[in-house]
Amino acid sequence: MLNFEFKNPTKIHFGKGLIEKLTTEIPANAKVLMLYGGGSIMKNGIYEQVKSALKNFEVVEFGGIPANPEYAVLLKALDIIKTQNITYLLAVGGGSVIDGTKFLSSAALYTGTNPWDILEKGIRTDVGMPFGTVLTLPATGSEMNSGSVISRAETKQKFGIGGPGLFPQFSILDPTVISSIPANQIANGITDAFTHVLEQYMTYPIGANLQDRIAESIMQNLIEVAPVILNNPNDYNAQCEFMWSCTMALNGLIQKGVPTDWAVHAIGHELTALYGIDHARTLAIIAPSHYRYNFNAKKEKLAQYASRVWGINEGSIETKAHQAIDKTETFFHSLGIKTHLSEYTDNYKDASEFIHKNFTDRGMLGLGEHKNLTPDDVVKIVEMSY
Amino acid sequence: MLNFEFKNPTKIHFGKGLIEKLTTEIPANAKVLMLYGGGSIMKNGIYEQVKSALKNFEVVEFGGIPANPEYAVLLKALDIIKTQNITYLLAVGGGSVIDGTKFLSSAALYTGTNPWDILEKGIRTDVGMPFGTVLTLPATGSEMNSGSVISRAETKQKFGIGGPGLFPQFSILDPTVISSIPANQIANGITDAFTHVLEQYMTYPIGANLQDRIAESIMQNLIEVAPVILNNPNDYNAQCEFMWSCTMALNGLIQKGVPTDWAVHAIGHELTALYGIDHARTLAIIAPSHYRYNFNAKKEKLAQYASRVWGINEGSIETKAHQAIDKTETFFHSLGIKTHLSEYTDNYKDASEFIHKNFTDRGMLGLGEHKNLTPDDVVKIVEMSY
Repeated sequence: MLNFEFKNPTKIHFGKGLIEKLTTEIPANAKVLMLYGGGSIMKNGIYEQVKSALKNFEVVEFGGIPANPEYAVLLKALDIIKTQNITYLLAVGGGSVIDGTKFLSSAALYTGTNPWDILEKGIRTDVGMPFGTVLTLPATGSEMNSGSVISRAETKQKFGIGGPGLFPQFSILDPTVISSIPANQIANGITDAFTHVLEQYMTYPIGANLQDRIAESIMQNLIEVAPVILNNPNDYNAQCEFMWSCTMALNGLIQKGVPTDWAVHAIGHELTALYGIDHARTLAIIAPSHYRYNFNAKKEKLAQYASRVWGINEGSIETKAHQAIDKTETFFHSLGIKTHLSEYTDNYKDASEFIHKNFTDRGMLGLGEHKNLTPDDVVKIVEMSY
Repeated sequence: MLNFEFKNPTKIHFGKGLIEKLTTEIPANAKVLMLYGGGSIMKNGIYEQVKSALKNFEVVEFGGIPANPEYAVLLKALDIIKTQNITYLLAVGGGSVIDGTKFLSSAALYTGTNPWDILEKGIRTDVGMPFGTVLTLPATGSEMNSGSVISRAETKQKFGIGGPGLFPQFSILDPTVISSIPANQIANGITDAFTHVLEQYMTYPIGANLQDRIAESIMQNLIEVAPVILNNPNDYNAQCEFMWSCTMALNGLIQKGVPTDWAVHAIGHELTALYGIDHARTLAIIAPSHYRYNFNAKKEKLAQYASRVWGINEGSIETKAHQAIDKTETFFHSLGIKTHLSEYTDNYKDASEFIHKNFTDRGMLGLGEHKNLTPDDVVKIVEMSY
C-alpha cells in the first residue's frame, strides 16, 4: 500500500425527509445564495422544501447553472455574492451545480485580481466561502469531495480545481429525489459512478486489498441496483443503494494508498467539449478502448475484477481480463448507454486530431497510472472508440 | 436503509515514516501533554521518533495509562493539564491510551464540578481539548472515532462516552509499529476488530447492501491477513492490511443506516471487570454463544455472512448459519484465542450472577439490536460460554 493522507470533514444527512436539516446546518445569521440548475427542482417539490427550510434566512437565488458548469454563468453569480454580501452558499442540484458552487466558494474569497487564474493556474483552495448541498442527482460524488470541474465554452476547455477548503460543510442526500429523475440521467449517474471506481481501481496490483474490496463492493452494488432502479425509480431501497454508492465511489476513500488512472476522464472531457456529449457517456465510450489498448499494463487487475465483480473464474488471466472488458461494455449497453463515438455524432473523425492538439498544447503528455500515455497513444484509444 | 448522519473529520496519515508529521499537525504555540502507556514505546523506537518530531514544542509527559484506562490514573493527568496550562493532548499508544486521552479532552474543558459526572451521567462532549494520536497497536479503531471506554477499578465499572468533540484532530498510522507487538496482542487486535464488524453487521437484513459488503470486505481482509501477520509481523503489506482494517472496522462508516447490536461488548466488559481478561478475548468468549442463543433473530445475516465471507453456499439458511458460527469460533482458535470462560478462570461460575446483578442495577434490561435481551437472557448466554 502507498502512503496516504485522508480527511473528509463533510457531514452527510442521508435519508427521507431530511431537507429540513438546512434550518440548523446553516449558521443563523447567514445571508444565503441558493444556487440551482435548469429548474427541475421547481417541478419535483425540492424547491418548496428548501425554501420552507430557509424561511428564517435571508436568501438570494441564482438559477440556470448548466450541465458542465460554465465559467461565464458563474461570474454572474460571483457578482451577486460580492455586491449583495453573501456569506453562505447552498447548492441545490447535481454535480454541475455543486461543482459550480465550489468554484464560487473559492472565487468569493480569492484575493487575486482575476478569478480565471483559479482555473487556469490550478490554484488550490485552502479556505473557501462555506457552503452546503442538497443533492438532487446522484452521479459525481461532488457532494462529499473537494474536487470540481468547470467549463469555459469560449475556449472549449475544462479545468479541475480542488483543495481542502472545497469540501461541503454538509450535504443532504434524500434518496426520494430519484423518483423524478429521467431514466437517461439515472443511467448517466450509474455510468459515471461506476467509471469513477474503475479509474481508482483498474491499474495494477499494489497490495491494497481492503480498498480493492471496497471498490469491488461499490461496483457490485451498482450492477445489482441498476436494473432495479431503472425499472422502478420509486423503489426506496434501490434509491438508497444507488445514491450512497455514487457518493462512496468518489469521496476519497477508495483512492487512498493505490495508484489511480483518470485517463478516461481526461479524454472524455474533450468529447464533451467538442460534441457536447453527456459526461458519463463519454466515459462509456472511452473506457473499453482504454482498457483494451492498455491491456498488458492492466490485465492483472482486469482479471481480479473479472473474478470478484463478474464471477468469471475460468481461464487464463488474459481470458478473464478480456471477458471483463466485454462485460463492462455490455453493462453500459444494458443501461441504454452507447459505447462508440460514431453512435453519437457523424463528425466523429474530428475527435482524435482535436484531442491530440489540445493535449499537446496543454502539456498533457503522460496520462494514466504510469504517466506514460502520450498524445499519440490517446489518438489510438480515441480511434478504437469510433 | 435507515436514515443516518455521518461526519468523521479526523485526518489520517497512513504509512511508513510519518511520525514526523507531528511537527506540522500540532499548532506551533501548543503546550503539549504527551500520554502513553506501560512504556513499550521506549523499547521500539517510537518514543524517540515522537520526541524528535516535538523538539520545538513545550512537552510534558504522562506515562503509565493502563489497559482498560483507569479513572483514578487519568485524574492525575487531568491535574497536570490544569496546573501546567496544557493546550494540546497527544496520545501515543493503542486504544487504552487514546480512550484515556479522549476522557481527558472532555474533562479538561468540562465546566461542571466533578469530572466523574461525564462518565456516570454520560455527558456528551461537543467541544473537547484538541488532541492527536500516534497509533501503536491496531485494534479498537479509537484513532478514527469519537468513542471512549473508561474503567473504574474501585467500583468494577466501565463507562462509554462520546460526542463530536472527541474525534482526534489527526492520527498517525505507521504500520511498521506492528513489528514489535507481541503475537498475543496482534491476535487480540484482530479479534477486537473482527468483533467490531460483527456487532454492526450480525443483526437482520435492512437492505443496506453497500454497508454489508464493506463490512464483509473488512472481515475477509482480517481473515486473510491474520495468518500472514501472525507468522511474520514484519511483512509490510500485511501490517498495512491489518492496521487499516482495524481502523475501518470502527470509524463509523459501516454502522450507518443499519441496526447495530453491541451486546457482545456489553457482556464482555463485565468479564474484564470481574476477571481482568483481555477485552478482545472476552468478545471471543461471548460472541459464539450470543449468536447461538439468538439464532432465529440473526439467522438470515448469519447465512449471508456464511456465504459471502466463508464461502459456505450449500444447505438451508439454518445449516449455513450454524456453520458460520462454528467457522467464527474456529477462526478465533486459529489466532490462539480461547472461546470458553472456563479456559480463562476457575471461578467462571461467578460470572452469570455478577452480570445479572450489574445489568439489573444499572437498568440494562434490553440489549441487542431489538433491545429485548433481558438480564435473564444474558445469564443464559454467559452460561453457554462456560
